[in-house]
Amino acid sequence: MTRRIHNFNPGPAALPLSVLEEVQAEMLDFRGSGMSILEISHRSDLFGEVLTETRNRARRLFGLPDNYRVLFIQGGASLQFAMAPLNLLGEKDRADYINTGTWATKAFEQAILLGKKVRYAASSEEKAFSFIPKTADFDPEARYVHITSNNTIRGTQWQTYPDTHGIPLVCDMCSDIFSRPVPVEKFGLIYAGAQKNMGPAGLTLVIIREDLLGWNPEAVMPTLLRYKTYSDHYSMYNTPPCFGIYVAEKVLAWLEKDIGGLENMAALNRAKADRLYGAIDATDFYAGTAAKEDRSLMNVTFRLRNHDLEPLFIKEALAAGLGGLKGHKSVGGCRASLYNATGMDAVESLVAFMQDFERRMG
Amino acid sequence: MTRRIHNFNPGPAALPLSVLEEVQAEMLDFRGSGMSILEISHRSDLFGEVLTETRNRARRLFGLPDNYRVLFIQGGASLQFAMAPLNLLGEKDRADYINTGTWATKAFEQAILLGKKVRYAASSEEKAFSFIPKTADFDPEARYVHITSNNTIRGTQWQTYPDTHGIPLVCDMCSDIFSRPVPVEKFGLIYAGAQKNMGPAGLTLVIIREDLLGWNPEAVMPTLLRYKTYSDHYSMYNTPPCFGIYVAEKVLAWLEKDIGGLENMAALNRAKADRLYGAIDATDFYAGTAAKEDRSLMNVTFRLRNHDLEPLFIKEALAAGLGGLKGHKSVGGCRASLYNATGMDAVESLVAFMQDFERRMG
Repeated sequence: MTRRIHNFNPGPAALPLSVLEEVQAEMLDFRGSGMSILEISHRSDLFGEVLTETRNRARRLFGLPDNYRVLFIQGGASLQFAMAPLNLLGEKDRADYINTGTWATKAFEQAILLGKKVRYAASSEEKAFSFIPKTADFDPEARYVHITSNNTIRGTQWQTYPDTHGIPLVCDMCSDIFSRPVPVEKFGLIYAGAQKNMGPAGLTLVIIREDLLGWNPEAVMPTLLRYKTYSDHYSMYNTPPCFGIYVAEKVLAWLEKDIGGLENMAALNRAKADRLYGAIDATDFYAGTAAKEDRSLMNVTFRLRNHDLEPLFIKEALAAGLGGLKGHKSVGGCRASLYNATGMDAVESLVAFMQDFERRMG
Repeated sequence: MTRRIHNFNPGPAALPLSVLEEVQAEMLDFRGSGMSILEISHRSDLFGEVLTETRNRARRLFGLPDNYRVLFIQGGASLQFAMAPLNLLGEKDRADYINTGTWATKAFEQAILLGKKVRYAASSEEKAFSFIPKTADFDPEARYVHITSNNTIRGTQWQTYPDTHGIPLVCDMCSDIFSRPVPVEKFGLIYAGAQKNMGPAGLTLVIIREDLLGWNPEAVMPTLLRYKTYSDHYSMYNTPPCFGIYVAEKVLAWLEKDIGGLENMAALNRAKADRLYGAIDATDFYAGTAAKEDRSLMNVTFRLRNHDLEPLFIKEALAAGLGGLKGHKSVGGCRASLYNATGMDAVESLVAFMQDFERRMG
């Protein structure tokens, strides 16, 4: 008997049930081919249609201008931390980073490891990354400014993107891509692992302004680390992560057809987060950890006033069908990740559980 | 209504039906978690068990000594073409390559691109890569000798591995891994994309002798391109391709439990290939393209005497439920890939079709 729980995992994370049901139904025979999607050639027309459709859905959802390319890569954000500076910074070029937490730090450290001239233009480390910096000391000569749009561990999110005076943003958008409309013209490069709002782990979506493809043509790097390789070969220089692209196509179709696009998705995400933050703020039994104006709509981080009760809270929540509420190991506490596929019904169930838990323990 | 065809695809390729049925059955609820395998955290105990079991099955099937590590990486063989020389060759180190076709050439070219001191110790290019070189001019100072164990495009395969006088082999084993026992002590590094004999595209298995992890510690490279990163972090430095690992666990379980290990698998593969090569050799309507003593058990490449009939042959075969028989675009002709999951029933059906086609056209 199939049982489903409410899934608040930080990633890999919840997928729309209708998507999983389609994947299940097609597992032995994809579109009448007599083969599973796992068994067909990436060079087949059948897979080519999937790849094109995924790309086109991403373009439509983002409203991408013609001078942006959509690439499908492997290796997750951790490989992008290296690919971005390798592709965009020559020996004498400089770039600015803004440090808003663990992943932003990792992106910066990878550029340093590779010998690139980067520095922090702003940081929220002074207050345990609990806020988003409101000002920054940008280097006018910087080739790009790197930001992390949403910080899964600390529960903060850029509500509006920084004004860089025309320097293109390079953005790790792993944990809020497709959760809201994005003013894409501010960005030179957007990258995101699929495993939060798009599909399975093992697929990375990259959106790049085409002039950036030619920024550092003389640099020596593995062919698979060069964005131009993916752009020139339609993301098929080598075998792509076919299944991930296939699932992403279904998730993006759900976003377009069932949800109705990113404006609608953003409204739903706002409503879910407002409901949960409202419940947290309504009592001092719970407390949010991020600065209110910078709170993430994707990852609601909170503590119980009595920290000792948190393990019991998480355990009882799971028993009640509410999974994935443990905070990141580096900060502790609780975290409810409200990605696109986690619905208001899940939030209502969580709020009801929280109120009941407080009544019993408070 | 689910219809299944006989799948001779060169990769991604056939998977055991029982594996696909298990994946299908568990798609909405993995091991009673109430979540899909696509939705659970890679840091969960549940996924940890899958990862460990996949690793242990690979160790048992290969009979790996304790001084070999099993790593799970992304990027396919094409990224390994870069990772191997980056990790194993310092500025002054040299390595030998043996050129047996397109993929061996690509591996070599990637080492050259990265400025490494490599050269060909042998090649079969003179006869269109239709054979495996029997002698080689090894550099006694070479750090490693790179070979491609099976050549999918030309249909050749190393029947016994070359004697390198103790120099470790580095081997692209993409297209015959787990198809037969391997004398692993001759190898320093084995790598293979999963999409032929292990599972879905997007997962790369690496087997490395542990002393090689420390060969080039000062080299500057992205953290995710260093084998030691995967070894130190149990392949979980960043989010791994969870679904690929999950499917691979099932495929390796099928190999261990249903097939009974690599000796049995090799015997089955030999019988399948003998049956098909026998049918090809029994008539001059068909002709194999590879030297007989070097014929691949995985990829049976052949031509019709009348090349003009090949498109019709491939089209009618597909209509008869025999898919994936088109030769690689760079060489044309026909190719039947007989990976582990393609059974003798598929081969018998193909032979019957070939005989019928010859009767009608011959």
